[in-house]
Amino acid sequence: MPDRKHHTREVIHIKGSDSQTETRSVVQEVPLTVFLNGKELITLLTTGDANRELALGFLLSEGFLQVKEDLKSIRVDDEAGTVEIELSGDLDLTEKLWGKRAVTSGCGKGATFYHILDSLHAKPVSSQLTVAPARVYELMKELNRLSDLYRETRGVHNSALADGEKILVFRDDIGRHNAVDKIRGACFLDEIPLGDKLLVTTGRMSSEIVVKVAKMGVPILISRSAPTSLALDLAERIGLTLIGYVRGDKMTVYTGKQRVLL
Amino acid sequence: MPDRKHHTREVIHIKGSDSQTETRSVVQEVPLTVFLNGKELITLLTTGDANRELALGFLLSEGFLQVKEDLKSIRVDDEAGTVEIELSGDLDLTEKLWGKRAVTSGCGKGATFYHILDSLHAKPVSSQLTVAPARVYELMKELNRLSDLYRETRGVHNSALADGEKILVFRDDIGRHNAVDKIRGACFLDEIPLGDKLLVTTGRMSSEIVVKVAKMGVPILISRSAPTSLALDLAERIGLTLIGYVRGDKMTVYTGKQRVLL
Repeated sequence: MPDRKHHTREVIHIKGSDSQTETRSVVQEVPLTVFLNGKELITLLTTGDANRELALGFLLSEGFLQVKEDLKSIRVDDEAGTVEIELSGDLDLTEKLWGKRAVTSGCGKGATFYHILDSLHAKPVSSQLTVAPARVYELMKELNRLSDLYRETRGVHNSALADGEKILVFRDDIGRHNAVDKIRGACFLDEIPLGDKLLVTTGRMSSEIVVKVAKMGVPILISRSAPTSLALDLAERIGLTLIGYVRGDKMTVYTGKQRVLL
Repeated sequence: MPDRKHHTREVIHIKGSDSQTETRSVVQEVPLTVFLNGKELITLLTTGDANRELALGFLLSEGFLQVKEDLKSIRVDDEAGTVEIELSGDLDLTEKLWGKRAVTSGCGKGATFYHILDSLHAKPVSSQLTVAPARVYELMKELNRLSDLYRETRGVHNSALADGEKILVFRDDIGRHNAVDKIRGACFLDEIPLGDKLLVTTGRMSSEIVVKVAKMGVPILISRSAPTSLALDLAERIGLTLIGYVRGDKMTVYTGKQRVLL
């Protein structure tokens, strides 16, 4: 994985009516085009530091890929901003459904919205994993400690996968969905199971993030931000534990409270 | 327009290891499906308070609609979460191009990315509009004052259209793209010209927001947040003024400094 990317730009900083020229760090945003079995599938806008993981995470999230055996080849060209992936199996139905995808809140990826709701309905989260509040505060502090690119540019969302003890995988991106997809891709490559893990993020919890996390099979989602009504409805329905507003030694448990040790 | 929507939920608030049940406000998130000339086009996830404006703004942003004469009919069903729009003219090409859209940073809508770059290239921003720093600070303060739903739920992004004096149109949504599309839809319905206005937003400035604002013809974009490298490259190329990091009496001018009175 190349170093995290940021650029420096000359800007005019103004305080009151006094101005001065300064050099400022800006997060890199680049297009990444994913080709699936020779056909252009999508162009993602990303920080560009983990293109292999992002492309794989995207295909996993969108249902194109399920198991490692189906991944025939992957070719990443960071310069050109392309990832070419060959999968075995018949993808026709997935592609057709995906074409009907909802776009969304302005933080959208895809997949047919109601189709997802249906498929989620069939797979409730059953994990017996629990977490103590003190551990949640620690994990959020650790996430913030790891956020170098955010401190430098203020332009990314951070996400991490943790076990009951510590953060195992940390990723950031200009898009909060991409940050989670990078984690999913990394876990796929390293064969890290997800069903006994916690996902910690700085982003707001909309229905789409809940759907993404539920499809990963992660039973506990922790955020420093607020959830939406639909995110709570979905989390409730599938039995996902949703903890929001984690700041210092405070947090709010919205759903799935049986996994929080009170 | 119905009242802004929020729901109350019972949650467990935890401080340290002490827990108590509380009632908390949560922003409403609902699906809105847009039908164009009888065909389902997209499902947006939104606060659901300005469905007519959002649907029109979306069609304007994505290039399906340009002038009021082409709008034959619009039927909004807030209960069902649908907007049915009939447009005159041949939409085949637009639909085909739109089908090839990029998805993006996790804050994506659509339209073919490079196609947009090309079309922007042809239309540089030429407005002579200028703004003084003191006015920028005032507009951001006014945006914050108007943000009732944000204060209540912490779950929305706010955007506003302003002239050189004050805010004319304020909208919020769970998605920062939707908030801007609602403004565009409102201006279309009320025939408010955009070429001499400023857009003020709380959201981060990625390439997609720059593209959206440039297509609106708004010459100055102001945000309390940070831009990305690609947003700056695009803004520079088309001559858009980009002001970020507006907090209190400080701000940063990234591009198009000739419109800022120093």
